[in-house]
Amino acid sequence: MRKLVLGLCLIAQPGLADEGMWTFDNFPTAQVKQKYGVELSDAWLKRLQRSVTRHESGCTGSFVSPDGLVLTNHHCVMACLAKLSSEQDDLVENGFHAATRANERRCPSEIISVLVDTEEITSQVNASTAGLSKEQANAVRKQTLSRLEAGCAEKSQENRATGPLACESVSLYQGGQYFLYKYKRYEDVRLAFAPHESIAAFGGDPDNFNFPRWCLDFSLLRVYQDGKPARTPHYLRLRPAGARAGEPVFVAGHPGNTSRLLTVDQLAFQRDTSTSSYLIRNSELRGRLTQWGKTGGEQLRIIQDPLNRLENGLKAYRGLQRALLDERLFSQKKAQEADLRRRVAGSAELAREAGAAWDEIAAAQERYRQIYDRYLFLESGAGFNSKLFDYARVLVRGAAERGKPNEQRLREYSESNLPKLAASLLGATPVYPDLEQLTFSFSLDKLRETLGPDDPIVRRLLNKESPESLAEQLVTHTMLADPAVRKTLWDGDPRAIAQSNDPMIALAREVDAEARAVRRIYEDEVQASVAAAQEKIAKARFSLYGANIYPDAAFTLRLSYGIVEGWVEKGKSIAPFTTLGRLYERATGRAPFRLPQVWLDAREELNPDTPFNYATTNDIVGGNSGSPVVDAQGRLVGLAFDGNIHSIAGSYWYDPDKNRATAVHPAIVLTALREVYGAHALVQEIMGKGASAQ
Amino acid sequence: MRKLVLGLCLIAQPGLADEGMWTFDNFPTAQVKQKYGVELSDAWLKRLQRSVTRHESGCTGSFVSPDGLVLTNHHCVMACLAKLSSEQDDLVENGFHAATRANERRCPSEIISVLVDTEEITSQVNASTAGLSKEQANAVRKQTLSRLEAGCAEKSQENRATGPLACESVSLYQGGQYFLYKYKRYEDVRLAFAPHESIAAFGGDPDNFNFPRWCLDFSLLRVYQDGKPARTPHYLRLRPAGARAGEPVFVAGHPGNTSRLLTVDQLAFQRDTSTSSYLIRNSELRGRLTQWGKTGGEQLRIIQDPLNRLENGLKAYRGLQRALLDERLFSQKKAQEADLRRRVAGSAELAREAGAAWDEIAAAQERYRQIYDRYLFLESGAGFNSKLFDYARVLVRGAAERGKPNEQRLREYSESNLPKLAASLLGATPVYPDLEQLTFSFSLDKLRETLGPDDPIVRRLLNKESPESLAEQLVTHTMLADPAVRKTLWDGDPRAIAQSNDPMIALAREVDAEARAVRRIYEDEVQASVAAAQEKIAKARFSLYGANIYPDAAFTLRLSYGIVEGWVEKGKSIAPFTTLGRLYERATGRAPFRLPQVWLDAREELNPDTPFNYATTNDIVGGNSGSPVVDAQGRLVGLAFDGNIHSIAGSYWYDPDKNRATAVHPAIVLTALREVYGAHALVQEIMGKGASAQ
Repeated sequence: MRKLVLGLCLIAQPGLADEGMWTFDNFPTAQVKQKYGVELSDAWLKRLQRSVTRHESGCTGSFVSPDGLVLTNHHCVMACLAKLSSEQDDLVENGFHAATRANERRCPSEIISVLVDTEEITSQVNASTAGLSKEQANAVRKQTLSRLEAGCAEKSQENRATGPLACESVSLYQGGQYFLYKYKRYEDVRLAFAPHESIAAFGGDPDNFNFPRWCLDFSLLRVYQDGKPARTPHYLRLRPAGARAGEPVFVAGHPGNTSRLLTVDQLAFQRDTSTSSYLIRNSELRGRLTQWGKTGGEQLRIIQDPLNRLENGLKAYRGLQRALLDERLFSQKKAQEADLRRRVAGSAELAREAGAAWDEIAAAQERYRQIYDRYLFLESGAGFNSKLFDYARVLVRGAAERGKPNEQRLREYSESNLPKLAASLLGATPVYPDLEQLTFSFSLDKLRETLGPDDPIVRRLLNKESPESLAEQLVTHTMLADPAVRKTLWDGDPRAIAQSNDPMIALAREVDAEARAVRRIYEDEVQASVAAAQEKIAKARFSLYGANIYPDAAFTLRLSYGIVEGWVEKGKSIAPFTTLGRLYERATGRAPFRLPQVWLDAREELNPDTPFNYATTNDIVGGNSGSPVVDAQGRLVGLAFDGNIHSIAGSYWYDPDKNRATAVHPAIVLTALREVYGAHALVQEIMGKGASAQ
Repeated sequence: MRKLVLGLCLIAQPGLADEGMWTFDNFPTAQVKQKYGVELSDAWLKRLQRSVTRHESGCTGSFVSPDGLVLTNHHCVMACLAKLSSEQDDLVENGFHAATRANERRCPSEIISVLVDTEEITSQVNASTAGLSKEQANAVRKQTLSRLEAGCAEKSQENRATGPLACESVSLYQGGQYFLYKYKRYEDVRLAFAPHESIAAFGGDPDNFNFPRWCLDFSLLRVYQDGKPARTPHYLRLRPAGARAGEPVFVAGHPGNTSRLLTVDQLAFQRDTSTSSYLIRNSELRGRLTQWGKTGGEQLRIIQDPLNRLENGLKAYRGLQRALLDERLFSQKKAQEADLRRRVAGSAELAREAGAAWDEIAAAQERYRQIYDRYLFLESGAGFNSKLFDYARVLVRGAAERGKPNEQRLREYSESNLPKLAASLLGATPVYPDLEQLTFSFSLDKLRETLGPDDPIVRRLLNKESPESLAEQLVTHTMLADPAVRKTLWDGDPRAIAQSNDPMIALAREVDAEARAVRRIYEDEVQASVAAAQEKIAKARFSLYGANIYPDAAFTLRLSYGIVEGWVEKGKSIAPFTTLGRLYERATGRAPFRLPQVWLDAREELNPDTPFNYATTNDIVGGNSGSPVVDAQGRLVGLAFDGNIHSIAGSYWYDPDKNRATAVHPAIVLTALREVYGAHALVQEIMGKGASAQ
């Protein structure tokens, strides 16, 4: 019951709990001072902001030296490790340690960004859509955002202080505010250090989202500029002893997304439609990948990274489903919504502006339900689960879209997004044909299962083929596994793509019209209505509750506050810290509870009381992985890597009693680097004694 | 909306729709006469009852000759075909045709029963539990049923007319009535004919539960007695032309179970707890099995039967989940329940007797939720998915239980159930070690995932092992794959089992105490409360609505009425019949849309207008597979094999607009036997010209 009462306070009286993923320019410093006696200055915030890195692959990190050294999670570099590995040299299993900077290895496709500045553009966006129909507004809004992004990027070219910036528009509070976020980009990201995966992810999927926990989930990257380590004057200093139990701590990072401001109908859509669909489909894929991994050592190696990601997603979605099936969640959400609607109805102006918004969203969700499967399978990728197909689609659509004016393109082909798109298309990522055939044939099979064998597009694709035979042909005969081929096509005349005989390109062309058609329906009949209605609700909310609220997460920079603290689980107290000694007791010798030999060898020399992982009350979600945890002095006291099982429900609400973030303790990071891996130069650099070596 | 209105009539005014799986002794003949002008006599009912077979593996069939020939679905003999097959001789892929009766092959473990008589025992059961606490009543009720079953079986020994009968107690109307059902048992069941699986299950999983459909889903078995074909004077005569569109037809069979009388809280439990759990776990297993099947031809053969069953279950559960997430279903159920509770509250006596029953069920469901995972994994088999483990558990428990007086045993070890248990334990079923390791390690993995790596029993089992290594050891070293070993242990001194070093038996012993403990909690704290409360509701329902209602399905004999009719899907009329011609057009040449060569060869000689499958409005569910469809004259006009996708929601309600049963037409059965497979003796026997050949 306590949760319900506090939960209802989410909007009316925020800040009683350690709740919220706050933007830096609206951080509740007064509340934090009142609650914890900690005063955070603007300089403190500014320094922290410039020290935090956004990893475009979906993580966070922080600079820990003036030479561009970035501390992040091990699981944030898993994709890089996998891409750099081969059957002969497995960086996932064996870890990686660049003996010197010259040995640091570049991660293909990795981009790291640092938020330099933000600029509110709400009035420009709203002015551009005033008086338009929902469908028109939805299209024009995108055009405006593309235009403002391009203008911002162009202007930054002349800014001596910052150098060229990448500009991304951000919608906060469900369209209540629009911002341009301006990033410094690092496209040359190299791997400096990663421990063995078996200790970084000790406990594997069974322990994921659990606590107590023993994961050495850290790694070190370095950003380069012009072929040299970048100068990064803003960085965090390590506090080796970490924070004490009960001490206030702050997590800065890029939470991916939350759904706390959704309407009841939108939540019901997630509960009844998208979550089940995801879980059932991907559980089957999990089984396929797992079993394939058992067919050989190389298969096992190849499968590890995609399988980890899939299992992480499944565990998270399972938690979301549990939260959505929790009667208390819907009771609270219904009560909140009823309260807001009552207040809106109580004001003639608000009622006129926003009174119908909830029903408009409900109608849009119903429309979404009707087209969901088709949209998911034809446009959102569920029907064509293949890297090679993704390449083909980007090439086919890129050829069509890049020929149009910037503002007329599909948003992901706008100028501001092209560098990321190109990095991903052109990176030297290994393609494993057997795995491609597996995922591709699986997705074609689900396409047929979901749309039915008599659906016209299914019949066209599988007229005389099975999903297996079609996938085999396409994967075997396409040339797109070669990055040079992709580059030639991307850089060349778009007509080459229109005329290409490459079978994967032919398939991407073949389904493009139907995919665009269902996307059009989605954008005009679902997204447009939802965007318009959400904007009305957002304005009503500002008008009724004021600006002292935080927006849903959007993979943009946020700050959360909290303290180091365990919780009570089924009547039992969970201590906030774990220590090294228990790790050894818990090892079974079998994956995922197996320790690397170097750790077994070092056991006697290490202090069993060394803190390992710890829990805090900070409000974070996926995307915060690798986020620095800092103390009131701004010193680095750990890095977030997960949350407990209750934190998954954090997508919908924050439960102060149970929701905990989990972090890697700085003591175990130093112990690992110094005493197990002998990475003395890195330790010196982090501890501030090697910074001038460069 | 029409569904809601009609649905509400389910209890107050049954019979407006073609709804209900009626017992033979409470069939609404007057209603049928009024609606369709068809008068069914007692003799008609009696003859039909004695012609219908119950297949203990979960199907229905019917006698189609006086020599014990049984017509049922192909998918009902899939397990038998798989058991009789080997790498060299694949009866699933190639079909089977016994050239003479001497070539008919015995199905291991198959038992067929015919319902001879029923006897109501409600008063004896109620008298035995009067005045007892819920927990006591729950235990004593089982004792009473075991005692009455044993007494019935003993008495039948002396009955010259019937010979020895198997007696099973049946609870109808959620404990509102108890019956003894008395069966004649045939334990020697032989395979006479089965077509190729690729035409029997044409369209495979994609087409399953869909219509229009082209499945030649029939087979022929024969029951033997004393080594000779049994004399079966009650049998059905075929009407080769089948029934016309709109003609009344009747389906007799053994629907497995429905949940139409459950309370709203019980449905919510299914929606929120058991259904998701089933779907997610088994979707992953589906992926594992599918992928394993791709590792070789023999693996593909082995996997087919278990995978078909799993996929069928998944598709059904997915449908159940959809139904449970349909707001209209819960609205209707809530309205019905509110109506019944209002009426109960309106009578002082009923209120005293049953007023609290719904809340008692709700409390029991909450308790169930708490123990669900533990019960499912330790006691219900989800944690130990292995035939060999099942054998071990039956041996371990059998040794303990058979030493007790009949009434004190776990119900499945009561005398009346031992023959079925022994048939399943001792049958010469092939065991495939690699598959065993797969399913067993998978289930151990899920056990750990679900209960957590720190659960005491998980730690005990997997202290120094992984799920894979443990499964491998146990499967490799157990001797239980050998039926002779199982027989020696089953027939021998129970101490041999207590002292056995067989590792699978040791495991079954190891987990038995914990499994029994959670079963005890389930029985005392969930089942006992639910049984007591349901009985109260059942009595209130009889008292308020009278006896003109049908009970939920319980894999006992039922009769449903309806007509041959299609339905309207998204504004489009679906015709009730399919024909052979379209089958050929639909074949892609790739499984599961591939036709056997003999059918491709025969194409030109066959009449493309031959009716193939058809739809009827009869109310049936799983367990009805193989059920005879008969006309008003009692002639066989087809056999049920499936329902359309809407029929899955039939577990919870019957929708007259959409819910359709699907059946195999007699014309295609005769065409196949005569013109494709040349099974002339069987045709003669079915057509009544070969009956005297024996």
